[in-house]
Amino acid sequence: MAKYKQGRQSIRFEEPPVITHWASIAGKKESEGPLAHTFDFTSTDTLFGQKSWEQAEKHMQQLALDTLVSKAGLTKKELDLVFSGDLLNQCIGSSFSLRNLKIPHLGLYGACSTMAESLLLSAMTVGGGFADRVVAMTSSHFASSERQYRFPLGYGGQRTPTAQWTVTGSGAALVQSSGKGPRIESCTIGTVVDLGIKDANNMGAAMAPAALSTIQAHFADFGTSAADYDLIVTGDLGQLGKELLLQLARDAGLSLGGKLEDCGTLVFDTSAQDVHSGGSGCGCSAITLCGELLNKLQKGKLKKILFCGTGALLSPTSTQQGQSIPGVCHAVCITGGN
Amino acid sequence: MAKYKQGRQSIRFEEPPVITHWASIAGKKESEGPLAHTFDFTSTDTLFGQKSWEQAEKHMQQLALDTLVSKAGLTKKELDLVFSGDLLNQCIGSSFSLRNLKIPHLGLYGACSTMAESLLLSAMTVGGGFADRVVAMTSSHFASSERQYRFPLGYGGQRTPTAQWTVTGSGAALVQSSGKGPRIESCTIGTVVDLGIKDANNMGAAMAPAALSTIQAHFADFGTSAADYDLIVTGDLGQLGKELLLQLARDAGLSLGGKLEDCGTLVFDTSAQDVHSGGSGCGCSAITLCGELLNKLQKGKLKKILFCGTGALLSPTSTQQGQSIPGVCHAVCITGGN
Repeated sequence: MAKYKQGRQSIRFEEPPVITHWASIAGKKESEGPLAHTFDFTSTDTLFGQKSWEQAEKHMQQLALDTLVSKAGLTKKELDLVFSGDLLNQCIGSSFSLRNLKIPHLGLYGACSTMAESLLLSAMTVGGGFADRVVAMTSSHFASSERQYRFPLGYGGQRTPTAQWTVTGSGAALVQSSGKGPRIESCTIGTVVDLGIKDANNMGAAMAPAALSTIQAHFADFGTSAADYDLIVTGDLGQLGKELLLQLARDAGLSLGGKLEDCGTLVFDTSAQDVHSGGSGCGCSAITLCGELLNKLQKGKLKKILFCGTGALLSPTSTQQGQSIPGVCHAVCITGGN
Repeated sequence: MAKYKQGRQSIRFEEPPVITHWASIAGKKESEGPLAHTFDFTSTDTLFGQKSWEQAEKHMQQLALDTLVSKAGLTKKELDLVFSGDLLNQCIGSSFSLRNLKIPHLGLYGACSTMAESLLLSAMTVGGGFADRVVAMTSSHFASSERQYRFPLGYGGQRTPTAQWTVTGSGAALVQSSGKGPRIESCTIGTVVDLGIKDANNMGAAMAPAALSTIQAHFADFGTSAADYDLIVTGDLGQLGKELLLQLARDAGLSLGGKLEDCGTLVFDTSAQDVHSGGSGCGCSAITLCGELLNKLQKGKLKKILFCGTGALLSPTSTQQGQSIPGVCHAVCITGGN
């Protein structure tokens, strides 16, 4: 009877799966930002040598997977399973990257929460005894996102002050049942939260309530508070969304104890890089985790973090039909390795 | 070390999770077909009382979930988790159906293989001891699919002889760690297979190689053959795709022993209902499973089936960019209940 279920929304791993290796691929703008030194591969070519931005996104996932297995000293055929998804319609960045590679694949759609979603499902698969080597992977691309969600880039539309900049990048993490590295101790699965935000240029506001809901659920399920974590890091709320989350938390009487950061404000220098409210996209939390955060966990500079992937579950069609924007947030508790 | 992993692509459940309840919702054309008597709810209104086809699809998932919990004598808040996805861009049928319901949700994208994908992930979650009551759910809608993947319906485009008819319907299954009902014995996770088919009006041909690959992997991983199953049932290959699968199997020296059926040819009367090659869409295998197939398993009319969800992982963008169509197939072995 669900011996690893914890509270209403959480799972605790009796033998915490290990993130033994990770890899990150990033674009030009990301390579000019504060986390530049943490990426495995960067390109100044927006197309990554491909013929379209969608193919470029596929190629970034291929590079991330190649880099990951190379760092792990494995071949791709030694992988048991890949969980991946992305923002492109029908997630073609993910499925096309695995075409004819003969690796079992389960596709996900969690919008920008995909890095956390794929990581927690990888941990469940390994922790449940179903596989030994599982990859969590995702990507996003500024140009493919802009034309799919907003305007053709050639149109030159002005961006609103609340807009975020979709990260061009891909991150991949290898989760194994044993080995050295940061460990996945637990996770909290989010519910779909919608407080009625309709502005598709203000994703941070749409996602902040979901982030609060999942952080509250995590604390409640495990009887912990912000004091138990070195860092609580959301996926891509951006500057405005982060401020909103802090305000929502205050209103709810929840202290985040100065521990809150957001990958969207870590990955870019928001004051200098003209990204308005900060970074966004599946790649935002993916390349921040699969570089900066896991590096620091491995080196012991961070002991315990709550990685909270945030996603806005809208589509251009839902927005055109006047619907508000549902958000979701999945949290993964990761502890420093050795 | 992965004690439930079996062979290269499969998982075997030591204590098989039970499908205790199931529900299916279907549209007008489906209610005129051979499986009409197996659906829980049908509507002659294409919009299901909503303002758009996308909202209708969301509403079908809500009806499926409501019917499911009602049959199970539960409330929605007693559910631990819902795995769901659909064909709409950004899977808005699924996420919007769960808006503010406070049920943990993990979103999937497996195209028309989603019923099998959600079912196997539900079984892994329950079988791994992570939750007790998990729902696998999906939907598709003829009208929302036509306008997203092909032409606006008002354009009146002619359908090719190889075209299939997207099923309007939603299916949901409740997977629990104990109880009465058909049991999930094992599953085989598919790889992304692409033999170069580029005709987006011939999905059966694009998916047949993936179906063969997964059925072969399942037999190899468990040392079984077609003789060990009462039925091997693919998701939505349609008439043409089914014939292609039989031919590919013959070419590969694999006997399917007269056990092969396809949900796309079960759900419609292909000779009388003007659906050309048969049914398709996530809803096709979902309403066939969550009615006809699970009913027969429960009554002992079927003892053991291999349910093979098939998905074509294309997007309109990938087709416009000249890409071929990758396919995937996930198989779930279900045995008759008691």
